[in-house]
Amino acid sequence: MKIALAQLDYHIGNFEANLHKMLLAVEQARALGADLVCFGELAVCGYPPRDFLEFDDFIRRCYASVEALREASTGIGIVVGAPARNPVVEGKDLHNSAYFLYDGAILGVQHKALLPTYDIFDEYRYFEPGREFRTVAFKGKKIALSVCEDIWNVGNNNPLYTICPLDEMLHEHPDFILNLSASPFSYTQAGERIHVVQSNVARYGIPLFYTNHVGAQTDLIFDGGSLVVSPDGLVFDEMPYFEEGLRVYDLEAVQQGGQANEQPKDKIKLIHDALVVGIRDYFRKLGFKHAILGLSGGIDSAVTCVLAVEALGAENVRVLLLPSQFSSDHSVDDARQLAENLGIRYDILPILPMFEAFETALLTQFAGQPFNVTEENIQARIRGTLLMAMSNKFGNILLNTTNKSEMAVGYGTLYGDMCGGISVLGDVYKTDVYALARYLNRDAGVIPENSIEKPPSAELRPNQKDSDSLPDYDILDAVLYQYIECRQGPRELVQMGFDEALVARVLRLVNINEFKREQAAPVLRVSRKSFGMGRRMPIVGKYLS
Amino acid sequence: MKIALAQLDYHIGNFEANLHKMLLAVEQARALGADLVCFGELAVCGYPPRDFLEFDDFIRRCYASVEALREASTGIGIVVGAPARNPVVEGKDLHNSAYFLYDGAILGVQHKALLPTYDIFDEYRYFEPGREFRTVAFKGKKIALSVCEDIWNVGNNNPLYTICPLDEMLHEHPDFILNLSASPFSYTQAGERIHVVQSNVARYGIPLFYTNHVGAQTDLIFDGGSLVVSPDGLVFDEMPYFEEGLRVYDLEAVQQGGQANEQPKDKIKLIHDALVVGIRDYFRKLGFKHAILGLSGGIDSAVTCVLAVEALGAENVRVLLLPSQFSSDHSVDDARQLAENLGIRYDILPILPMFEAFETALLTQFAGQPFNVTEENIQARIRGTLLMAMSNKFGNILLNTTNKSEMAVGYGTLYGDMCGGISVLGDVYKTDVYALARYLNRDAGVIPENSIEKPPSAELRPNQKDSDSLPDYDILDAVLYQYIECRQGPRELVQMGFDEALVARVLRLVNINEFKREQAAPVLRVSRKSFGMGRRMPIVGKYLS
Repeated sequence: MKIALAQLDYHIGNFEANLHKMLLAVEQARALGADLVCFGELAVCGYPPRDFLEFDDFIRRCYASVEALREASTGIGIVVGAPARNPVVEGKDLHNSAYFLYDGAILGVQHKALLPTYDIFDEYRYFEPGREFRTVAFKGKKIALSVCEDIWNVGNNNPLYTICPLDEMLHEHPDFILNLSASPFSYTQAGERIHVVQSNVARYGIPLFYTNHVGAQTDLIFDGGSLVVSPDGLVFDEMPYFEEGLRVYDLEAVQQGGQANEQPKDKIKLIHDALVVGIRDYFRKLGFKHAILGLSGGIDSAVTCVLAVEALGAENVRVLLLPSQFSSDHSVDDARQLAENLGIRYDILPILPMFEAFETALLTQFAGQPFNVTEENIQARIRGTLLMAMSNKFGNILLNTTNKSEMAVGYGTLYGDMCGGISVLGDVYKTDVYALARYLNRDAGVIPENSIEKPPSAELRPNQKDSDSLPDYDILDAVLYQYIECRQGPRELVQMGFDEALVARVLRLVNINEFKREQAAPVLRVSRKSFGMGRRMPIVGKYLS
Repeated sequence: MKIALAQLDYHIGNFEANLHKMLLAVEQARALGADLVCFGELAVCGYPPRDFLEFDDFIRRCYASVEALREASTGIGIVVGAPARNPVVEGKDLHNSAYFLYDGAILGVQHKALLPTYDIFDEYRYFEPGREFRTVAFKGKKIALSVCEDIWNVGNNNPLYTICPLDEMLHEHPDFILNLSASPFSYTQAGERIHVVQSNVARYGIPLFYTNHVGAQTDLIFDGGSLVVSPDGLVFDEMPYFEEGLRVYDLEAVQQGGQANEQPKDKIKLIHDALVVGIRDYFRKLGFKHAILGLSGGIDSAVTCVLAVEALGAENVRVLLLPSQFSSDHSVDDARQLAENLGIRYDILPILPMFEAFETALLTQFAGQPFNVTEENIQARIRGTLLMAMSNKFGNILLNTTNKSEMAVGYGTLYGDMCGGISVLGDVYKTDVYALARYLNRDAGVIPENSIEKPPSAELRPNQKDSDSLPDYDILDAVLYQYIECRQGPRELVQMGFDEALVARVLRLVNINEFKREQAAPVLRVSRKSFGMGRRMPIVGKYLS
């Protein structure tokens, strides 16, 4: 038996495009002699469809796509993820299901039993868990169908869940396992995924074929890396990261095993590739081509800019240099040098005239008040307004350049440097931004060394440095990582050896700045805990604040 | 037996304040001769605590508060909501529980079984459902304890759930039901709540005592309205809306019934009172006193301003009048008149000088381009920058004045008139804003009639009217209500008689403007479907767009 895995970039709600893409893959699989072709979880509508699932019209269109695939299944099995209406009145209205279609018939439908409802996942908001588990008989084989999380409770070792769906099919002696996933990228996810798939294979002693989505849906990036693991526990094949593709596997060869084709998983390269796909898909799926951003001469905007050029092409990226009276000459020089290295269009618009107009307008109101963060913010907001003006006039989307460390402690101006359609580095700590810069500079050294080497500064008042008001990024990032990614509280952090006053100060900064993040641009997610839908915090709370 | 219901305004994460408030209520109840005092769901930590629940430190503090209440329970029963650790490894780590404390002992703990996971609720993200149901024996009575949603599946008639917790206690023949709730306000909620409580009483034939939270937690407003329903089905008492309070009821009198004390439920008055509490609590819980907003002379900012004065006092509200070259004289006059009627401080800052500075800065880039929405947005962003400058300099929180109709169709400038710490009218359709204005004018006529009567206009280009680019608000709001609140799709809307092209246009506007709402201020929720956490939509989706 020949099994094709199709690793595709779906688009939420774009039924025509998703169906068209799958029908092409069916033809390709057929031409390659496949008996069976597998798509991803909720492939007909894209993942995550969120509250679109609450609209009957949306569900009708999902069913229409399944129908079209059923009609296309002459002589080839098609396994596809789609929502299915729950016929039982009690419980949620839908299941998250895998359909097995063949020769115009539905050979089986398996409903997902383990519904992730944590971090960015809201599946129990929409879906009733499946409670029946049956293999699908196809061409003399018994196939155990499963949807994503269903393989993540191997032998009930995951404390989140109380049942293990594949255990329930064991008595039918399946020949192999198919898993349809939509598993969002984080820089540790590909490794964890392989571990889980291998654990399943070790438990059941049969091959597991795993398909994933690829491409980005706003904040969530899917890395592909679809997997075939042989009964010997080796990774028979791992499909490429961040690329669409279709590969056909011979079941007998997979059963035989002996191949080990796992890809390398370098954290910074993975983050880099994810961000490039994240930018590219955000633009493509919204129907935009052109990006704009402000170049300060600092490292964050430099890294964002190089990533944008890789994603969209130099001809589609335009930058503004927006020096204030406090900007150093070398900042403008570094920014200009970067733009020239990249071959992108740049304009220099000093913000002083507008700043003076604001100062004059507020002269009476601000009489006797010292220069403070207010004036810093006015400068940042003038820049935001200029960038958004270019965005509005020419249809460029503004890229936000704020990094995760700044977002965490609120070191940024709401409606100023926090503007933008998508935040490129909002899930990358400052220390990792440096690593990304080095990675981007590995060949040509496109980012001026000075942008990397100089002490970080917002340059919004004379001789300002980030270190005036923030701890060193090495320490700050270590505390933030433990608090945000690992959910360690004040007591645990002090036990780890961090200074108690520092911990209290950092945690307080994170908590009191929730109001800023509430209004931040969506953040390309590359870690297992990113700001946005995956981290839901009260704003008026008073805890560690 | 005497039962006290305490209807309190808790503060998320503010353990000291919540405990202090509850201990005072215990003393008060004791002084009034109560045998028992009931607080709300998750009262120790406030509701909704969201991802704070994932921190061990937070849970430890919850336990410490329960301990303190246990120690205070000498001679008086205390029923309080708090998270409880799930001792079983499998499943979520916590339960959402009601503790029954008395004389230093824990007489019973009932875990919530029905975990709302829809709209603004994420309870299955954190909690494992309770699966055991036992009454609590107290002073010769058997009490059926329940937490909020547990009474919302009367006799299994709610399709969302498969069990009815109180049915499971029936065989123990409870004497009365206690329900601890945190039930957020919408203008239909108080009526639905009474209906549900009465349905429970009708089914079980025993009294039901229901306590609710009061006050606001950012976007969510709790209206109180704690309830006592007698076996005769009458509302023995309904505690006031939007006020803290403690009342003691004699069980025998309640059993006897015959009292009907339901309060009136006028939609516009309820919305008005909710918004005033929403503003007041947002400021109080963040530790701020002073608000600022821009007055345009239009109805939205006028209504927001009057509500702010009611919530915070005239001495704490300051406004800016920010006329552009396109503002009509009467707009400035109307705004000034309102400020004078309210006795609040106002400043007039014409924005033209800053607009000219931006035009000059962009002269080269914009050469040959016609005046369009870009220039409108620049004006809106200058206003946003001026308001935020005053906010930053003087510690005033900026109130956002955008209404729900505008938010829905994206008729507003991101980082411009969409700025603000909290959106006051973001869940109030334009047609209801008019009704609110009439309500606010019912006595003194504080809002100039002209602000209410004139055709709505953004005044960002010559002779602009909202009706140039939007359908009439009567029709627009009707379509939006069906699409947003009632989740009707394009087919259903056309079947209702709305024009097909209009429906397609409005739904498209709503969907393509998701990116703006993603970065909007939190919205005070007054309907059953508000923008924010309760409505989760993809941004890069392509559906009806």
